[in-house]
Amino acid sequence: MKTELIKDILTSAPDGRTVTVCGWVRTIRDSKNLVFIQVNDGSCFASIQLTFDRTNPSNPSNAESIESAVADISTGASIKATGKLVESPASGQAVEVNVETLVVLGKCPGDYPIQKKAASMEFLRENAHLRARTNTFGAVFRMRSQMAFALHTFFQERGFYYINTPEITCSDCEGAGEMFQITTLSMEKLAKIAVEKGAKGMNPEDAAKLVDYSKDFFGKQASLTVSGQLEAETLATALGRVYTFGPTFRAENSNTTRHLAEFWMCEPEMAFFDLEDDMDIQEEFIKYLLNWALTKCAADMEFFNKRIQPGVIDTLRHVVETPFKRVSYTEAVAELEKHADEFEFKPYWGCDLATEHERYLTEKIYKCPVMVYNYPKEIKAFYMKLNDDGKTVKAVDVLVPGLGEIIGGSEREESYDKLLARINELGLKPEDYSWYLDLRKFGTVPHSGFGLGFERLLLYVTGMQNIRDVIPYPRAPKLADF
Amino acid sequence: MKTELIKDILTSAPDGRTVTVCGWVRTIRDSKNLVFIQVNDGSCFASIQLTFDRTNPSNPSNAESIESAVADISTGASIKATGKLVESPASGQAVEVNVETLVVLGKCPGDYPIQKKAASMEFLRENAHLRARTNTFGAVFRMRSQMAFALHTFFQERGFYYINTPEITCSDCEGAGEMFQITTLSMEKLAKIAVEKGAKGMNPEDAAKLVDYSKDFFGKQASLTVSGQLEAETLATALGRVYTFGPTFRAENSNTTRHLAEFWMCEPEMAFFDLEDDMDIQEEFIKYLLNWALTKCAADMEFFNKRIQPGVIDTLRHVVETPFKRVSYTEAVAELEKHADEFEFKPYWGCDLATEHERYLTEKIYKCPVMVYNYPKEIKAFYMKLNDDGKTVKAVDVLVPGLGEIIGGSEREESYDKLLARINELGLKPEDYSWYLDLRKFGTVPHSGFGLGFERLLLYVTGMQNIRDVIPYPRAPKLADF
Repeated sequence: MKTELIKDILTSAPDGRTVTVCGWVRTIRDSKNLVFIQVNDGSCFASIQLTFDRTNPSNPSNAESIESAVADISTGASIKATGKLVESPASGQAVEVNVETLVVLGKCPGDYPIQKKAASMEFLRENAHLRARTNTFGAVFRMRSQMAFALHTFFQERGFYYINTPEITCSDCEGAGEMFQITTLSMEKLAKIAVEKGAKGMNPEDAAKLVDYSKDFFGKQASLTVSGQLEAETLATALGRVYTFGPTFRAENSNTTRHLAEFWMCEPEMAFFDLEDDMDIQEEFIKYLLNWALTKCAADMEFFNKRIQPGVIDTLRHVVETPFKRVSYTEAVAELEKHADEFEFKPYWGCDLATEHERYLTEKIYKCPVMVYNYPKEIKAFYMKLNDDGKTVKAVDVLVPGLGEIIGGSEREESYDKLLARINELGLKPEDYSWYLDLRKFGTVPHSGFGLGFERLLLYVTGMQNIRDVIPYPRAPKLADF
Repeated sequence: MKTELIKDILTSAPDGRTVTVCGWVRTIRDSKNLVFIQVNDGSCFASIQLTFDRTNPSNPSNAESIESAVADISTGASIKATGKLVESPASGQAVEVNVETLVVLGKCPGDYPIQKKAASMEFLRENAHLRARTNTFGAVFRMRSQMAFALHTFFQERGFYYINTPEITCSDCEGAGEMFQITTLSMEKLAKIAVEKGAKGMNPEDAAKLVDYSKDFFGKQASLTVSGQLEAETLATALGRVYTFGPTFRAENSNTTRHLAEFWMCEPEMAFFDLEDDMDIQEEFIKYLLNWALTKCAADMEFFNKRIQPGVIDTLRHVVETPFKRVSYTEAVAELEKHADEFEFKPYWGCDLATEHERYLTEKIYKCPVMVYNYPKEIKAFYMKLNDDGKTVKAVDVLVPGLGEIIGGSEREESYDKLLARINELGLKPEDYSWYLDLRKFGTVPHSGFGLGFERLLLYVTGMQNIRDVIPYPRAPKLADF
């Protein structure tokens, strides 16, 4: 049926050519002589206005069919219209369409959940299959797409290769995150066999033996990944510069506005990058993304700035324009200690920084984005490169005003001996990391990487308050609808 | 440390400027007076040659440190070198580097699995953490990245939005695929409780009651998605044109060279597209991807053509240059029936087309890519739009020479009544599809979509034979290493 997108029609010259508009009706206003219909097809924030002037003597002979369509139209109905694209006399829109044919593709009954009056975010979440038809969620999901493409473009322009690390894994990267188990074993069958064994006198302490992972799909216990970093390192030490961008999982029982059980992570990993190179590209990356949002998504940003979080445009612009301040963890903690009475949690050397500390650094002390580096090794992961002081590691967190941490990264330990020592020190099993240690055994190189939680970036860019509202179908404890 | 990529150095002018090269040694040749070192950093197929001429009177004073580095170098070692970029007297390379400093970053012991002599694909699969350092897998994974970016660019240029559909789901899209269960319930605890209940006389037929999904993470039984299409439709009927690109899962016990338990799918979905529009964009899409491979990945393609599948370049070029033939299923089967004796499985109206039929159509009958449309409804999914004949649905499969099916798609049933009837006819539960039916209830529109298995595309483009070799870490029955 070859239709034009409304975003293309709206930006073309009102030269009287005939256009075909397809979309969903946002509003219809039917007065004595004039009908105005606002139609949106999701291609952009704006709707296009269709007008039908009953008094126009040059109206087509099919006025009757137009009238019948108008009678069928309500908010949410889908239509197809043709007409001449002309300059609009109304303010706030450059062009409009004088309707010549109008067909209702699908009516919309009165129980349509997406009505003109603003619904609560909670209600829209329950109707997640329809919420992208609202102004807010249309803008959010367009921005999500834009930020994803910006991310790809940034890395591809800089010689990075996009890699896909596995979602299903038998190893727990950081020895930390709580994981989802995946299985093809039947729990119902297991229960039945166990009940039968119990009847025959099996000792309950032996029950675990009934769980036979050798019969599971992968022949062993398998989980969903909490990070693709270790696998990404194997590719960075072959292709040079790589990045992942894909779903990641945490089985944490956190019912907050900042946590999802399924979220998207971007994990770049670069051979021959030291911590300073890592910080340079992190700063360049964040600025690139925010600048893309400001320049290529102006209409959606304007909406966020007006309706979602007043001031968000200024916040982003400030980050784009300001050099990021780089301070060591030791220096940052010393600064925070001067203001100890302002915090719920008192800062001290060795403590993990809480969001209140991170925001204080960016909003009160330095008044700009801050990169805190060289953290105590005890509060960071085993794979981070040890500094000569023996106490700190080459980690860096990027903190931004209004949010706190947006990126976490580090130079990786490239010394086989030091990495092995750290694995042993933490009680991890070296045999679980034999392939990871191989990267240090065969032609090891200095390398660095970082991770960006994509939904946290989207919260920052859009000003939305709940992480469940920046992903189409959020997964969280007791929540896996659709 | 700010290093240049070898791909950039190799394409720059040999103007005698000093360059820094970082990478892994592919080969070293040490003759009486001359040392040649081939270094690769994964940024491109080619390596760069470092030369050190012991007889050169203008050699730097640090010749001793260079000699000591040379002594430490073997295949797989990582090095950092600086030197002048000059025209190469050797054939097959435009430039080389006259070494002035040479540092070994990481030695490579003799048990390095990736040696110069060709290892078997099976052996390299077992060493998947190092295989990207070979010519073959370097080229494959660069191509994977290129095809992913080509895919994004194609859709973004055409007004599509990238969407992420959930990996974790409580609904089985096509009522078909075998799914992985995901859970945070402990099977070991379940077994113990069941053994105890058995001892107390529980009837084994009641054992299933012990599996309490209300206590599972999502409060109900959850699985990994087999397709994001239904969710993608909810976004296409809001944003207009969307596409997914993400991991998808099948728990099929298929140990073949064509199946993975975890693979990447691209599923575009377009409002206001009928079957013909769908076919148009599918053809454009395939041509765009293959043309990108031929023009932007020439060096890697040359390698595939020479070493992996002779003729692959001609195959791809033929697809790019030839209009796709469009034939109805009925017509295609009639043609195949004329050659019934050539098939293991005899074709008849109503049968699903096997790979032998698909390839015969493209390679013997039409000698070009073929789009077969209007399949019998019995062999296609419930959501496809019924034709007026009441027997066939608006499905289309794209078949290419040398592979068979590369894309499957359809116009979706937009009629609420027809869709509901089909759901009932197939014994599916309408309440499981209430949100999907809502799309037909509220402002329904004609819409279409299709699916591309990304790894199948990569097999086609690279000429690789085993699908486990076009994804970094393949997952299959009994296989989830790394």
